[in-house]
Amino acid sequence: MIELYSAATPNGHKISVALEEMALPYEPHTIDLMKGEQKQPEFLKICPNGRIPAIVDQERDNFAVFESGAILIYLSEKTGQFLPTTTQARSQVLQWLMFQMGGVGPMMGQANVFYRYFPTKIPEAIERYQKEAKRLLTVLDTQLKDNEYLVGEYSIADMANWCWARTHQWSGVEIDDLPHLQRWINAIAERPAAAKGITIPPSQMEDKEAFVKGAQTMLVK
Amino acid sequence: MIELYSAATPNGHKISVALEEMALPYEPHTIDLMKGEQKQPEFLKICPNGRIPAIVDQERDNFAVFESGAILIYLSEKTGQFLPTTTQARSQVLQWLMFQMGGVGPMMGQANVFYRYFPTKIPEAIERYQKEAKRLLTVLDTQLKDNEYLVGEYSIADMANWCWARTHQWSGVEIDDLPHLQRWINAIAERPAAAKGITIPPSQMEDKEAFVKGAQTMLVK
Repeated sequence: MIELYSAATPNGHKISVALEEMALPYEPHTIDLMKGEQKQPEFLKICPNGRIPAIVDQERDNFAVFESGAILIYLSEKTGQFLPTTTQARSQVLQWLMFQMGGVGPMMGQANVFYRYFPTKIPEAIERYQKEAKRLLTVLDTQLKDNEYLVGEYSIADMANWCWARTHQWSGVEIDDLPHLQRWINAIAERPAAAKGITIPPSQMEDKEAFVKGAQTMLVK
Repeated sequence: MIELYSAATPNGHKISVALEEMALPYEPHTIDLMKGEQKQPEFLKICPNGRIPAIVDQERDNFAVFESGAILIYLSEKTGQFLPTTTQARSQVLQWLMFQMGGVGPMMGQANVFYRYFPTKIPEAIERYQKEAKRLLTVLDTQLKDNEYLVGEYSIADMANWCWARTHQWSGVEIDDLPHLQRWINAIAERPAAAKGITIPPSQMEDKEAFVKGAQTMLVK
């Protein structure tokens, strides 16, 4: 059994999508970000960075893994799924995974901060991050022009990038002119495991106003 | 022979440090960021994201690898060095590598943008990223309190985080109160391979004013 400590965010969803795709038994635990549970000493023992997601693998003596990108690699290697074993294909999947970890995730995250949560509206900062997010999504679109998935078959690189790319509207970025990205977003959305993964843990965003207010409060801390 | 396409930045230095540490034969090619060489069609064939660093491995039919984190894993697996093979230790190194890729790098990078290059001074943005950079460096300090290196022996996780952490002053972040981080920065700086790696390719920063001006021009593009 895998213990999953997560929240309904793109980084959290990467792991619930992967666990569903791999059909691994797991128990989700919601970390309430608004209450700051990710900074509590108990959670810091699992994840010294105080960020979700993290997992604990009961089958490996309660081994803890933090950082969504590292968790994806760990789960792939545990199950032998969604990460090719030939040197080149494997590296290409890791390249597109790193592209998400160092680019798409941080930049869309900053777009969200300045577009949605930041206490003052700073047009230059909103523009900077929306422009960079759009540039990165365009790189994905170009890669998907001649490829059904980012690298050969559906992999953890697709899961990682999809969990962010699908939320482009939350970052205020339109993708009407990126047809290959749209095709790929829709194709993955139809996978039952991916569709289920993004409902775990349940969203706190039903009350959007309260969510944004909570996120603003967190920023000030 | 490895062809290295790089520039004198923390992400670029990660790879020259690793190549030096692994004693791999390589040929460095400077990509002039100020001239936008990273956006030229020839370079985009190697790195679709148009960012440095990237490598081409002549021994593997000119296989191209982009994203510094993916290059580090590729080189480690090619040489069997600086990435443990046991499941747990290996995962821990990848966790701290991802921590750098998704956290330290992007956040110190944004601190640099708003503190050094951005055409207008936005105090809230400078404060946001300097604070987050300091928080991340404090997480490293805590990990280094009881560990000589981030995970067991010196690894690619140390190389990746070191190349950024050592530049804290460029981000305007002081580490006087982080003694374990200081000890680790100084220890790695004394490794001949690391010391040599950060001189390749040569810095464009001798004329600091021209450098900042060039970076500002790039931002506007």
